[in-house]
Amino acid sequence: MSKHKVTFLPDEKEVEVESGTTLLQAAEQADIYINSLCGGEGLCGECRLQVVSGNAKPDKHTIGFLSRDEIQNGYVLACQTKVEDNLEVMIPAKSRLEEERIITEGAPLSYSEPEKVVLHRRPYDPASFFEPLVSKVYLELPEPNLEDNAADIDRIVRELRKKSRYSYFEISLACLQNLADKLRENGWKVTVTYARHNEIGRILEIEGGDTTEHNYGLAIDVGTTTVVIQLINIKTGKVIGVEASHNLQARYGEDVISRMVFVCGKGSLHPLHEAVIKNINNLTQTLSREKGVNIQNITAVVAAGNTTMSHFLLNLMPCSIRLEPYVPTATIYPQIIAKEIGININPQGILEVIPSVASYVGGDIVAGVLACGLADKPEIKCLIDVGTNGEIAIGNNEWIVCCSASAGPAFEGGGTRSGMRATKGAIEKLEITNGQVTYETIGKAKPRGICGSGLIDAIYELVRNNIIGPDGKFDLSRNDNRLVTEENDPSYILVFPEETETGEAITISESETANLIKSKGAVFAAIKSLSDYVGLTFEQLDTIYVAGGFGSSLNIPKAIAIGLLPDIDRQRIQFIGNSSVMGARMALLSAPAFEKAIDIAKKMTNIELSSYTPFMNEFVAALFLPHTDRSLFPSVHY
Amino acid sequence: MSKHKVTFLPDEKEVEVESGTTLLQAAEQADIYINSLCGGEGLCGECRLQVVSGNAKPDKHTIGFLSRDEIQNGYVLACQTKVEDNLEVMIPAKSRLEEERIITEGAPLSYSEPEKVVLHRRPYDPASFFEPLVSKVYLELPEPNLEDNAADIDRIVRELRKKSRYSYFEISLACLQNLADKLRENGWKVTVTYARHNEIGRILEIEGGDTTEHNYGLAIDVGTTTVVIQLINIKTGKVIGVEASHNLQARYGEDVISRMVFVCGKGSLHPLHEAVIKNINNLTQTLSREKGVNIQNITAVVAAGNTTMSHFLLNLMPCSIRLEPYVPTATIYPQIIAKEIGININPQGILEVIPSVASYVGGDIVAGVLACGLADKPEIKCLIDVGTNGEIAIGNNEWIVCCSASAGPAFEGGGTRSGMRATKGAIEKLEITNGQVTYETIGKAKPRGICGSGLIDAIYELVRNNIIGPDGKFDLSRNDNRLVTEENDPSYILVFPEETETGEAITISESETANLIKSKGAVFAAIKSLSDYVGLTFEQLDTIYVAGGFGSSLNIPKAIAIGLLPDIDRQRIQFIGNSSVMGARMALLSAPAFEKAIDIAKKMTNIELSSYTPFMNEFVAALFLPHTDRSLFPSVHY
Repeated sequence: MSKHKVTFLPDEKEVEVESGTTLLQAAEQADIYINSLCGGEGLCGECRLQVVSGNAKPDKHTIGFLSRDEIQNGYVLACQTKVEDNLEVMIPAKSRLEEERIITEGAPLSYSEPEKVVLHRRPYDPASFFEPLVSKVYLELPEPNLEDNAADIDRIVRELRKKSRYSYFEISLACLQNLADKLRENGWKVTVTYARHNEIGRILEIEGGDTTEHNYGLAIDVGTTTVVIQLINIKTGKVIGVEASHNLQARYGEDVISRMVFVCGKGSLHPLHEAVIKNINNLTQTLSREKGVNIQNITAVVAAGNTTMSHFLLNLMPCSIRLEPYVPTATIYPQIIAKEIGININPQGILEVIPSVASYVGGDIVAGVLACGLADKPEIKCLIDVGTNGEIAIGNNEWIVCCSASAGPAFEGGGTRSGMRATKGAIEKLEITNGQVTYETIGKAKPRGICGSGLIDAIYELVRNNIIGPDGKFDLSRNDNRLVTEENDPSYILVFPEETETGEAITISESETANLIKSKGAVFAAIKSLSDYVGLTFEQLDTIYVAGGFGSSLNIPKAIAIGLLPDIDRQRIQFIGNSSVMGARMALLSAPAFEKAIDIAKKMTNIELSSYTPFMNEFVAALFLPHTDRSLFPSVHY
Repeated sequence: MSKHKVTFLPDEKEVEVESGTTLLQAAEQADIYINSLCGGEGLCGECRLQVVSGNAKPDKHTIGFLSRDEIQNGYVLACQTKVEDNLEVMIPAKSRLEEERIITEGAPLSYSEPEKVVLHRRPYDPASFFEPLVSKVYLELPEPNLEDNAADIDRIVRELRKKSRYSYFEISLACLQNLADKLRENGWKVTVTYARHNEIGRILEIEGGDTTEHNYGLAIDVGTTTVVIQLINIKTGKVIGVEASHNLQARYGEDVISRMVFVCGKGSLHPLHEAVIKNINNLTQTLSREKGVNIQNITAVVAAGNTTMSHFLLNLMPCSIRLEPYVPTATIYPQIIAKEIGININPQGILEVIPSVASYVGGDIVAGVLACGLADKPEIKCLIDVGTNGEIAIGNNEWIVCCSASAGPAFEGGGTRSGMRATKGAIEKLEITNGQVTYETIGKAKPRGICGSGLIDAIYELVRNNIIGPDGKFDLSRNDNRLVTEENDPSYILVFPEETETGEAITISESETANLIKSKGAVFAAIKSLSDYVGLTFEQLDTIYVAGGFGSSLNIPKAIAIGLLPDIDRQRIQFIGNSSVMGARMALLSAPAFEKAIDIAKKMTNIELSSYTPFMNEFVAALFLPHTDRSLFPSVHY
């Protein structure tokens, strides 16, 4: 077979590929990540590239994704275009999977010492006891003599029992090998690292001398869209760094369904598993470098994610999750050595994954319930976690029901032309007054797009200014230079091209608005269905916690006004940011909290909305701003 | 560096080595095992080879090991001779580590269904309950539906609980990976293999369909001299094959002390570990081939050995075992995946090692105590395990004391010119009447040497015929053509050269007799010291069990008559063969028996004879046939 050279611009990365390779595969070889929401199926039209030299034509089946101008300018879909010539290809900024970090200032990614918040709020609760999953204990052992010549490991366990709540310890063979020399070379002074493993202490490592100062852990939120890692000093319980990045699985599909279709259709789970491991290792490396922490001293990882993400992380086949009757391989996951799945920390360090409830109610919501304290007291509370999948839990210390509804990626910045994740340059706050748009961007940068919280503001402002009606339709009779119509889809220009980083306008169209209404409708319908199911009105909910990756803040009155959140006293709604990573950290620092997560998962009753008839009616009724039934939103007036 | 070719005869194995390599190393490269009791230190003189072509001279320091005839005929010590020329070297039969199997007919290696004996003897005892360490259970699971969509693994555990005594199961990640497909492809019919792991069931493997017919285990006695393996059908409990071979560690030293000196002096544990793993894998392969058992269906291994052997097996440094205060790394060993240390069975199969008591009281004696039922009833019994190390236990269901004494390899056929292990051609029974020697050999073959039981007979017959006195000295005044003296050491010809397989006479010399007297004296002194220690006379011992690798049978009256065993009613002494492998098998087939082994190890009190003053006096007093104190042997009359 002949080979061809492909040069990717603007970075001039070159790669040589076999004739017949697709441009998407070529980009992958060049380590360039291209947006491909459908997993390379030619269905999403996201992977547009511009061929600037060499012969390559768009596939006739995909030509519908491209405008006439684009075709004339050499645009093709990377996944459907085969390399048959030496090519130079320009990658438009929008087609690149953004590699830069999600900004970690602001609420969602850097709560200020939330472990203290937790301790303050519920000092009565064992789940707030400081008892890390992995501990280091320094021992000074008495030297053996003929009267006391117990085996080396027995001598260690004898002392360890005095300093630990465990009476039985298990030990790996690796720890026993060379133990004799280690004890004698270090004058019988050693540090033992052990993990809670059910009711047993599991000895992970025995080091010479006192190394108790160096014990670190990772709390990870494995989101469909975003992976967030906190580096935690296990000895002090303090978060010493946070990093986040886009889930590299995005190239195989934007949501869990399309990723499962990719895996189960083509039969290869491996690339999805590898992608998230790469995410974790990259972020860990960055954190360890920035904070001067040796990776060998990271002894524990707790990860929380939805059930599909947990399966991908552990390299478990997800295919039966997708199809009725929606059965995962496991909901409670074994404690494993993190290295087993390629996580690069101390080779004896452990990984625990927060348990799931069911195929579509994952460890992220369990972690969230743990974190917000929903399961602690008799008052009935509600947690709404708006990710790519919206998950709702209602309950108290005795019962919890939960459900999930596909919200789509809109609130995480996906699925709209100008939508972006909550990174630098994203509009997160927005106001329209007298035809003037004012906004704030993350990092005070030139605007590049708009993230979830900005979109909520935008929809609200468009209705308030009568630019769109409560049905989401644009008022085309207005005389407004920001109103334009392209290919039958009216849209509103939020930021003109000359003000943006990319030189392209930031807009929101009628079809996109319809999608956002569907997203908010699905979330609201889920909340409504679930509270109806347990026979409660919104007024009977003591508190509603809202979690998710909207942006660094969320304007709660506006979120109510568009009908995303129930119309109750604003004081009773609390935006808590990323509750998944918060719960993971609690579990890392407190074995009782981890046990509680297991209890929560076992206690939660999952209501399968797809087989719950009233949900569909609620959904249809919610496809309006704020809702077709205005009596549900008595305080909302535009 | 120049290279030279070395050809080993009679097999004509060729190998090319660097100039300066020793002949012993060259043999190792050619995969030829040469006897080297001292570990290649030039101290034992066992590794004689005959150089038949090419230049090689004996090292001047080792010349004392060789007779003038030998030097003239080109004999050298392999370990002290460097290759500086192309050589042809003849390996005398005696220098080869015999590779052929130890004969497995006869008592010690093929008890007839002893698991039934066990069950008959003690039906009251939980340790005789049939409850294998690893079980296979066939499950037909209900298919999931929307009302019952528990996770796959939960569905399995739910059914498993009904068929097992465990309520909690742990599972490896490997078992979860691909579980979803396995269940669906096999119509929800699977076989679960699980191991007892403390009080938890540890799921090792999940296979499609019903594979419960195929579940095998290995019971292994890792002896200093001999490795014995029984292949057991775990489903029926039946022993379906037995194989044994010499411990390949012998080339690093004959006893545990010299092997530890090798490891701790040169700092390399690896070759010792590798050697025993090679033993196990070779024997397993032979058994699996002969019995048509797929190695993948071997799911469990239980090994028993002395503390040093257990350390070598698990790749644990033994150096602190050897030196005061005699501390092993561990006495209770973790359950591991056998593959971790290179044992080639099912990759998820487990290895349990029978716990030890102390550095010189190992799992072999614990297994023996388990097997003979010493710890079951109030009657006080005694177990004497005569291996390279003699180990004694006295006790009942409430207490057990034990001790060990170095017996040397004499009773296992080592350390004497004509001594050999209990393999084909070994004289195992012998009588001298009117100057005529009659004998029986193992396998009815032409005699090649004499094994432990034959040596006991020989000593007895020599005394009875007044050829040696009670002090072991030869009566040189006799006119007997079998009496010869060479280099000041008189010896008696048991078999003339023309009758033997090797063409060399089978003899026993005065110095060898002195060694045998030391060996039997050490064993008897240990028994006497231990019973004195607990204030018991021999008459108060209900039963004495004698275990060990003497040969396929042991003449108990003759063993008493030379003063090896106490002079009690012969009916109360029972030869039980290899009690170590018997105990290992019991533990394999019965989790309560394995637990009991742990209890036994914890309960046993070790008396360190090296620091127990009366022992030395007892030893000196026992250096006589049968003993200096004839009142201890009232029934013995020559």
